[in-house]
Parts: sequence; C-alpha cells; structure tokens
Amino acid sequence: MGHSFKIVKPCPQTQARAGALSTSRGTLPTPLFLPVGSQGAVKTLTPEELKAIGVKMVLGNTYHLYLRPGIEIIEKLGGLHRFISWDGPILTDSGGYQVFSLASLRRVSEEGVSFRSHIDGSEHFFTPELVIQLQERLGGDIIMTLDECPPYSTDSGLVREAMERTHRWAERCQRCHRREGQALYGIVQGGVFPELRRESASVLSSLGFPGYAIGGLSLGEPKELTWAMLEETVACLPQDKPRYLMGVGSPEDLFEGVARGVDLFDSALPTRTARNGSLFTPLGRQDIQNARYKDWDEPIDPGCDCYTCHTFSVAYLHHLFKSKDLLAYRLATIHNLRFILKLMEQMRQAILEGSFITLKESFLADYQTTDEETRLAQKQRWLERFG
Amino acid sequence: MGHSFKIVKPCPQTQARAGALSTSRGTLPTPLFLPVGSQGAVKTLTPEELKAIGVKMVLGNTYHLYLRPGIEIIEKLGGLHRFISWDGPILTDSGGYQVFSLASLRRVSEEGVSFRSHIDGSEHFFTPELVIQLQERLGGDIIMTLDECPPYSTDSGLVREAMERTHRWAERCQRCHRREGQALYGIVQGGVFPELRRESASVLSSLGFPGYAIGGLSLGEPKELTWAMLEETVACLPQDKPRYLMGVGSPEDLFEGVARGVDLFDSALPTRTARNGSLFTPLGRQDIQNARYKDWDEPIDPGCDCYTCHTFSVAYLHHLFKSKDLLAYRLATIHNLRFILKLMEQMRQAILEGSFITLKESFLADYQTTDEETRLAQKQRWLERFG
Repeated sequence: MGHSFKIVKPCPQTQARAGALSTSRGTLPTPLFLPVGSQGAVKTLTPEELKAIGVKMVLGNTYHLYLRPGIEIIEKLGGLHRFISWDGPILTDSGGYQVFSLASLRRVSEEGVSFRSHIDGSEHFFTPELVIQLQERLGGDIIMTLDECPPYSTDSGLVREAMERTHRWAERCQRCHRREGQALYGIVQGGVFPELRRESASVLSSLGFPGYAIGGLSLGEPKELTWAMLEETVACLPQDKPRYLMGVGSPEDLFEGVARGVDLFDSALPTRTARNGSLFTPLGRQDIQNARYKDWDEPIDPGCDCYTCHTFSVAYLHHLFKSKDLLAYRLATIHNLRFILKLMEQMRQAILEGSFITLKESFLADYQTTDEETRLAQKQRWLERFG
Repeated sequence: MGHSFKIVKPCPQTQARAGALSTSRGTLPTPLFLPVGSQGAVKTLTPEELKAIGVKMVLGNTYHLYLRPGIEIIEKLGGLHRFISWDGPILTDSGGYQVFSLASLRRVSEEGVSFRSHIDGSEHFFTPELVIQLQERLGGDIIMTLDECPPYSTDSGLVREAMERTHRWAERCQRCHRREGQALYGIVQGGVFPELRRESASVLSSLGFPGYAIGGLSLGEPKELTWAMLEETVACLPQDKPRYLMGVGSPEDLFEGVARGVDLFDSALPTRTARNGSLFTPLGRQDIQNARYKDWDEPIDPGCDCYTCHTFSVAYLHHLFKSKDLLAYRLATIHNLRFILKLMEQMRQAILEGSFITLKESFLADYQTTDEETRLAQKQRWLERFG
C-alpha cells in the first residue's frame, strides 16, 4: 500500500479537517501529533510504551542519525524500523533544520551545504541528492526534501534567497527519489513574509508532492505572525494533500494549527518540558517540583488515562523529581505525551461531530490565560478541584 | 499471615539451602536477591517492570526516606507500599549504614547517633526506638535494628565497642517494636575479627530474632576476609532462621554467599553498573560503550529472557549509551537485574536438584577469571559465540 490522504470530514467553521493518512505501514487518523525520536528513541520510552500512549508515527532525524550511529550501521542492522524496534510508520526529517541550527561553520552553495558536526567537529557536506539517498537507506515511510532554514529574520532578501534555493533543492530531491512505498514531502519556507509564503507554497504545489511540510515557523517570531504565515501558506497548498507543521507541539498551538488546516505536527516540547518537571493539565502546565505538591494524593491530572496518572500520586512524582530519579523523567514523559495524543484524538472527534470550535474555546479558556486576574481565578479552580 | 521460614532443601556439599520465606505479603523462594529502591524507586524502573523481571521483594531505606520526602508524607499517603505502588513485600533497612557512610558530623552516644543530612546539612538524631517507630510508620514487611556500622578497620577495640553498642541497641529495638505482621531482624557486626563475629552472632541469636542480617562486610576488606567472616557468623546463627547478607550483589559474590548459607541479599551493584554501561553476560561483564559493539546485531546476552535482550540489539544499546538517552540506563538496568534474578532462580533450582556445586563451578569458570591467559581464552569464546 502506498501513500494517500483522504479528508474524512471538514470543519464547517474553520479550516480544520479530520482525515485518514495511508502509509505503507497502515492508515493513521489525522490531525496527528508525532513525538520526536531524533536519535532513534523517543527519550526515556520503549516502543511498547509509545503504542500504549496512542502514538501512531514517530519522527527520526537524518542529521542526527547520519552523525551517530551512522547510516551504514542502521542499514546493516536492517533499517531504522528494525534498529529502533518500531514497526509503525516513521517520518524522517531531512536534517535541513538541524544543519542550520545545530551544526557549525556552515557554508551554503547551490550544490549543497557544508558543515561541522555539533558532536565532534568533523566536516560534512549535504546535497539534496545525498539527503534523499540517506533517507532511502534509513527506510522511513515519509521523508523530507532538504531545505535551507534561515533563522527568524526581517531581511526579505536573505529569506527569498534561501527560499528559492529550497525550491531548486526540492526539485532535485524529487528527481532523484526512487524508493517505493516512501512518500517525499516538500518543505515550504518564506520566513515571515506573506508574499514569500504564498510563492513558496505555490511553487512547491506546482511540483506535485504527495504532502507538504511547513518549515521556518515557531523560530522566535511573534505568535500572531506564526499564525498569519500559516494561513498564507495553507491558502496556496492543495486542499487534498496532507499538511505538516514542523516544530509545533504545545496544546494551545496545536489547536491553532489544526484550526488552520494542519494535519501533522511534531515537536520535542511535550517530552522536553516533561523532563523539566512541567506537566500538562487541563488547567495549564504545572511545575511538579513546586513545594505545594509534596503531599498531594491525587494523580497530576485526575481525568487522564495514562499509566502515570493511573498508578502514582502527585506526591510521588514530586519526590522522584526532587530525588532526580530517572523514573521521574519517564513517568512525566508518558503523561505529557498521552495528554497531547489524547487532545489530538479529542480534536478529531470534535471535528467529526461538528464541535471543534466549542472544544477549542472551552479547552483554551481553562488552559490558556493572559491576564493576572484570570490566572488567579484559574489557580483557585485548580485548588478547589484537586487541592 | 506472619513471618516464617522453612528450609525446603539443603545442599549436601555446601551450606547452601533452598528455602521458603513467608511474609505478610506472600511466600518467597530463597535464596533471593532484593534490588535496592532506597529512595522509593528501583532507579529507572516501574513496579510492573520489576515484577516482569521476577523481583519478589524490594529494599527501602529509612535514612533516605526520613530525609526525603519525610516519613509523615509517606504515612499520609498510606505507607510505603502505596506510596511507591508496590504491593509485594518490602524490606526496610534501619539506615544505620547510611548514617555511618553518607551523613556528616556524626556523634555516637549510648542514647543514639546525631548526624547532619547529606542533602541539606540539617541536624538529626536517631535512636533505636525512633528508627523502629519510623519503620513501623513506613510499614515494611521486614525491618532492621539500628546498628553502628564503623568503616573497615583493623582496630579491634573500636570494632568491639561499636559491636557491643549494636547489641544493646538491638535489644532496645526489640523491646519497643510493636507492629503486627512486621518481622524485625537483628544485624550482626564484628568487623573482620573472627571472635567478634562469633560473639555478635551468638549474642543476637540469644535475643531470638526471626531473621538475621549480616552487616559490616564488603566494605573494602580483602574478599577472603569477607568469606571467612561470613563463615564465622553463619556458624553461630540458628540454622532455621533466614540470613541476610547486606550489600552483596555481584554474580560471583552471590554464589559465594549462597554456598555459605545466606538466604537474602541486596545490593545496588547490578543497577549501578547497568547505568554505567557495564552489562552482565555469562562470559563476564561487558562494557557496552566499547567500539566493537557498534554494529552487533545480537542481544547482549543471547540466552537471556529479559525485555531488553528480546527486543534490542547490542548495536542499538551501544548507540543509546553513546547518545546518553535515558532509555539506555533503563534497558541496561532491566537486563542486569534479570541476569541476577535468573541466576538466583538457577541456584535455587540447582540446590533442589543437588547440582549447586556443578552450577557454581561452571558459571564461575566462564564468568570469573584471574589470570590473563584464561581471560584471553574467554574473550575468544565470546567472539566465537557471538562475534
């Protein structure tokens, strides 16, 4: 079975849609969140735990895996699925973003980009053709074109230059991609310039990819700009192809992304914040290390169906974090990921039932506040409910 | 059901015995290894994983839990079993060893021992009575008397003084212990002096405890002395009560302890070495970070039935350790603990079948070598078998 995408139901009030994304390893419900397993593991978790949490597809990263352990080792071990023991679909990012954010001494030319490894300083050269070949050898089910991803900038000349090169590289990626059963997505760039975003989406659309990633957002620009650029981009992408917003993963941002017609998301945020002791609840993020949690006998989120919430009290999690026991990071990761996965399931269900807007508003009213008064009222509700 | 111990079968050639230890939470096969969960968790693992590994009883530590999170919090949360979500038996150590090894500014008097916390420098005072009360509030199934555990010393006067105080403290512990369904074990001391070891074992035996711990060994003394002192001690303990050798847990030491009549062991060694990337195999410990493992497609121990060995290759473990992914420490901990638990199961089976000596000799011939020639031959066998 190859790659295909079907819109099951659109939301009448927003751009949101409930869909079904078919890959060579099964059909996935969208909108969908992909946890980040850049280096071949979703930090702290086993494949069995990911499945129990409801994860359908994980993200691998070409830059990381190329540097360590090396593509030839993964290939020798039977490909990325077998190496990490995950038999569900995998999406690999091309590593463009990592080359432009993690690596040092970058030199970009039309041919490709040279850089030094952030691990050992060794020199490397990525071309669009090499990055496709590496992803073919990894064997992911969805792969990405090589993009030039400049940092957040207000210099439209620089952003245009990178965008146009990204388009030429996308074409080269498309020309050399051979592997059957593997879908290659193009990546839209264009920074925070509406006309560039529209141009990038249109140019890539004309190349006819089976799906489109939206890169270069959430890089530090104001949130309103993020959503404005997302809207410009989506308006120029084909309606019937999946759209993947890269690097977005907070509960509030996922709602905004889905409302604007995004089908796929990935982000390290839920797992990274978990390891920092910041746990998602319907009433906002809670810092588990706060002294007030030291003797609470409830789960961190009484409405949650995850292993952590079913098994342990807030007091125990608080203690594990204070003791720096590695189990702490794991239990928090399970909860935060499940919170996000369940939220996506609820969004999809709401789209199917025509109540997406209602869900979004009621969730965000509880979760997200901006003024101090609301924040205090929220705190009070939290204390009344669980305190 | 209260505490009782039955010898199911003694080994005809050694002091080893296969037994059954009954606690208020079920009957356990002995010899048995207890993983260390000093601070309320066996580092990195959930209760479900411990059960899957074959763990029957875990160790908690009064010193650690008293300092953090505090006994009143655990009591408020319903006791240690509920706090850590472990419904099997728990043995709590009194914390005597930790006061004498981790805490600072100790002052010992007949009344008790004052010390400063290794966490925040706060001052505390442990008496035999307090330590029993704390353990009653924690609610472990087997608890320990407060002992004075001096460092390894060749000054018999000092060691005698600590030992005699340990005996008086043991009596005070026994007098004040009230909680039903909780067995209080005495702790033998006496350093590396045969006459003190015999005296300590005899004095404690005369007090009539339901079980006896052997403390103050494996503190840096030569191994021959460890085993000689163990023999002196066991010779003066009642035959029909369980014996618990504290702080011993390497595969080779477990064989030596079992051969000398020990029924219970605990040690942080299997879990600590796992987190350092040192994995047990029938051919000795292997450093998973060694470059030769980078592309091995086999489990670290092809004969092992643990989750790690069933699921992942050596190459993947090597990669996780190199990437410092927390999953690495967890998978290694699962393997090392299962290796030890399975070894104990094999020892018990061999005692039942009258083949303990054979098992010990064949295991140690592979696992433990002292001269370089044997080590090289062993390496060769390892490479032939799995290389």
